[in-house]
Amino acid sequence: MRDEFAAIAAAEGEDYSAQLAANVRGERVVDLWIGPDITADSLFGVYSATKGAAHLVVALLVQDGVLDLDRPVADHWPEFAAEGKGELTLRDLLTHRAGVVGADDGFRVEEIADDRIIAERLAGQRPYWRPGTAFGYHALVIGALTGEVVRRVTGRSIQEIHEERVRGPLGIDFYLGLPAELEPRFLGTQPMRPTPEQLAELRANATGPNSLTGIAFNRNHPEAVDLQELPNHRVIRELGPASVGGIGTARGLADFYAAAIDGRLLKPDTIAAVGQIHSAGTDLVTRQPAAFGLGFMSAATAYPVLGQGAFGHPGATGTEAFADPRNGIAYGYARRRFGFPGGPGPENQGLIKALHAAATAV
Amino acid sequence: MRDEFAAIAAAEGEDYSAQLAANVRGERVVDLWIGPDITADSLFGVYSATKGAAHLVVALLVQDGVLDLDRPVADHWPEFAAEGKGELTLRDLLTHRAGVVGADDGFRVEEIADDRIIAERLAGQRPYWRPGTAFGYHALVIGALTGEVVRRVTGRSIQEIHEERVRGPLGIDFYLGLPAELEPRFLGTQPMRPTPEQLAELRANATGPNSLTGIAFNRNHPEAVDLQELPNHRVIRELGPASVGGIGTARGLADFYAAAIDGRLLKPDTIAAVGQIHSAGTDLVTRQPAAFGLGFMSAATAYPVLGQGAFGHPGATGTEAFADPRNGIAYGYARRRFGFPGGPGPENQGLIKALHAAATAV
Amino acid sequence: MRDEFAAIAAAEGEDYSAQLAANVRGERVVDLWIGPDITADSLFGVYSATKGAAHLVVALLVQDGVLDLDRPVADHWPEFAAEGKGELTLRDLLTHRAGVVGADDGFRVEEIADDRIIAERLAGQRPYWRPGTAFGYHALVIGALTGEVVRRVTGRSIQEIHEERVRGPLGIDFYLGLPAELEPRFLGTQPMRPTPEQLAELRANATGPNSLTGIAFNRNHPEAVDLQELPNHRVIRELGPASVGGIGTARGLADFYAAAIDGRLLKPDTIAAVGQIHSAGTDLVTRQPAAFGLGFMSAATAYPVLGQGAFGHPGATGTEAFADPRNGIAYGYARRRFGFPGGPGPENQGLIKALHAAATAV
Repeated sequence: MRDEFAAIAAAEGEDYSAQLAANVRGERVVDLWIGPDITADSLFGVYSATKGAAHLVVALLVQDGVLDLDRPVADHWPEFAAEGKGELTLRDLLTHRAGVVGADDGFRVEEIADDRIIAERLAGQRPYWRPGTAFGYHALVIGALTGEVVRRVTGRSIQEIHEERVRGPLGIDFYLGLPAELEPRFLGTQPMRPTPEQLAELRANATGPNSLTGIAFNRNHPEAVDLQELPNHRVIRELGPASVGGIGTARGLADFYAAAIDGRLLKPDTIAAVGQIHSAGTDLVTRQPAAFGLGFMSAATAYPVLGQGAFGHPGATGTEAFADPRNGIAYGYARRRFGFPGGPGPENQGLIKALHAAATAV
Repeated sequence: MRDEFAAIAAAEGEDYSAQLAANVRGERVVDLWIGPDITADSLFGVYSATKGAAHLVVALLVQDGVLDLDRPVADHWPEFAAEGKGELTLRDLLTHRAGVVGADDGFRVEEIADDRIIAERLAGQRPYWRPGTAFGYHALVIGALTGEVVRRVTGRSIQEIHEERVRGPLGIDFYLGLPAELEPRFLGTQPMRPTPEQLAELRANATGPNSLTGIAFNRNHPEAVDLQELPNHRVIRELGPASVGGIGTARGLADFYAAAIDGRLLKPDTIAAVGQIHSAGTDLVTRQPAAFGLGFMSAATAYPVLGQGAFGHPGATGTEAFADPRNGIAYGYARRRFGFPGGPGPENQGLIKALHAAATAV
Repeated sequence: MRDEFAAIAAAEGEDYSAQLAANVRGERVVDLWIGPDITADSLFGVYSATKGAAHLVVALLVQDGVLDLDRPVADHWPEFAAEGKGELTLRDLLTHRAGVVGADDGFRVEEIADDRIIAERLAGQRPYWRPGTAFGYHALVIGALTGEVVRRVTGRSIQEIHEERVRGPLGIDFYLGLPAELEPRFLGTQPMRPTPEQLAELRANATGPNSLTGIAFNRNHPEAVDLQELPNHRVIRELGPASVGGIGTARGLADFYAAAIDGRLLKPDTIAAVGQIHSAGTDLVTRQPAAFGLGFMSAATAYPVLGQGAFGHPGATGTEAFADPRNGIAYGYARRRFGFPGGPGPENQGLIKALHAAATAV
């Protein structure tokens, strides 16, 4: 792992900054970091890896019997029944099947930061595909939708429950809402630096601002919101929206996945349920193959060496994090600068192969 | 657009004949034609672009409350219940889910011309896949199936309603049933001229005459019916079958799509409904990725610069036509000679990018 | 066909051993074999081509009204209701939708040999994906699952019914349970001999032992079971498990498919039903496109020259066998040494094109 990580750093160049942590069957076996100004405690904006922490909260509430996956969302949140969404269940939301991947008019940064505003806007939104016929990545909004169900049922937010049941008691370095006193540890994200060839490729494949992909990534908003700067806004870090606003270390990522599967948080039935593939095929938003469990991506599909049921969530900079219950692995990787073309960094494939080999050789 | 069109004409060669028209937010912004003997008034056989005009009629009747998308077809057309089709709805027909893409014995040209004969033959046909599990392009027959529902409910044909509510009152140059007096304006289609390499590619990928694709394109009929000559038969032009028999200009194509979204024909809810993706994935008939709304293809899927909900339908010669309600665009492109390999011409990608750029720069 | 077969033999090299047989509309038109020690009577382990014989038995029982495709499996087999499988029907099992593609702890060779042991283990297994949302190849176990339904309803095994209704009365050289006295005719399978490049490709694409693919192919069992040696174990040949344990000749394969469609075994409605596509798209286990009818693969999808509804099943060595009812073809091809990368040999494409051309030229 150390060699693989060093090789990646060498290939990425001098200003590459990243952290890598992994636990195998309860033990921290990898704990690496590299780059200017970076320490083991540097905090990164991890974008969609946030969804893993958010949906760990949902999994806990399902396990407790507080949430019912198959009950219509509108039972708790009547406004959501608008525009043909009356039969959609929490399970549909968690598996990216609801079809409200964004809002017709888009969001300002301050709106992206606030899950309640997103939820209010989406309650009346017509689904962009016919519910029940397809799935697509609810990139910026899934946590606001599932979070609104949590709030209506429990009276508390995903962020509060994460703090009370996961971060606080287990001492995990991952925040949905970063306290002001930890701000000095935060390292802002850095934008992608595509080569001319990569830039040409990005332009050739560009989707329109009003396309489904454009709406899902908020490019339909009249004020251009630069997603590559999202966690660099204090309001995002402060409110920690459950889809993309989490701040943490690679250790923090590995730690909450370790806690998810080592008996501290989830029971075997819940672990199996969250990693069970529910939506598989071509994602309507990303136009790429994808597989989702309950609010998590199927890491087992993305990384074929992993065990069936491995669940996690990558983030836009290249970040990746997951748990592999069959092999007893928890993994966290965070990077500061956006990689090309965005989304889970291809460097994770080699790192994860090496980790799996080491973990199963033990 | 003019430059892009000129470049295409130069690449296609001397006998390339085509028309291009586009409206943006109520205004004709493109109006071009090129080729021997061609004028702005030349009428082309547009093949499956016909389905757009036909299903605009269906959308009007749904909007009026005359047709119910979710009622079983067999409620109106009892014979259709045969062979396990009793629960199929109008929505299933419109989204290419019915599975009766052709007839076991195929059709003669005179039968392809007559939607009532097609409907009668397909009423007793066993679906070629299990209804509800997949979708596939009902290339030559969808308009006969949906048209039979229209006829049973209203007593009138799609062709008659198109004439009464769309072509006549709005003065649109597009015909489902070409009047004899307009025949002099018709320019017959011309067959593909593949290079030797293209011919080899076509042969290598050839499907059998009794394959699903063969059946859907009527290659299972003992008399070979040359689809490249279809609109050159007067009986096709005269009866204007709702799947492939429409005759019109590029202006006509752009005009009915403009009327569909500018308030003259469809209300916002109907516009959103027809463009909503219902069937997405790999089409069992074409073996290619596809996405369908209600009788229309998702132009938004085919052309990633367009807005979510853009709906239209290409035709076999290379023709393309659609409306993009989010960007206020209506587009029509018709060509005389079949391009390689048939279906929406790849030249549309560049034309549509240029149009979208111009429309959104305004 | 003779030329095509000779060309394949030349390309494969000196120790290539294979048989090829085909019937067209009731007549044996191809009957070839090649290789050291091989005769027309040599018996091969045909791996998953076995599923064709097994599910011909199921088709007969459905045709008789003994089995009901849409009745929950748990009605006959209550233990199967465990872990959320209570609503799964026989149709779900036959179309690879059940999601129990293997067992969490894997199987020993002696267990793979015994359908009753497999069934007992899988009754309590949690599905690896959410039933109803996807399909995946139940490579080693589908015949045990469907066979248990047969046994619970009829009191007899698929193997016994195959013997009584197919092999015995029709004199077909294909065995689900090879009698000891026929052992001298058996030729053991030989392992793949990949080139260094092929080996590198296999390694690069390798899935983990605990991945869904690993579980489905029993790589999760602590004792490595070499599937390339499976039929070389007498216990496999003796018990003839319904998923992979069949032993036969190419003539035998062609003969049972000929009997399936020539009026001796199945009626037209049953023929149409078994070949009707039920599951199409990307297979979760193989990560490849696939299409299944009722226990059979859609040969029509794999071989585009064939007629819609052609059904059959390949086997791991490169074996292929199917019936094409629209063209009146039955086909059997068996090979001794595993081809690269395993599964239906690419050589079948050319053989089947040649056969189809000859059959339709008649």
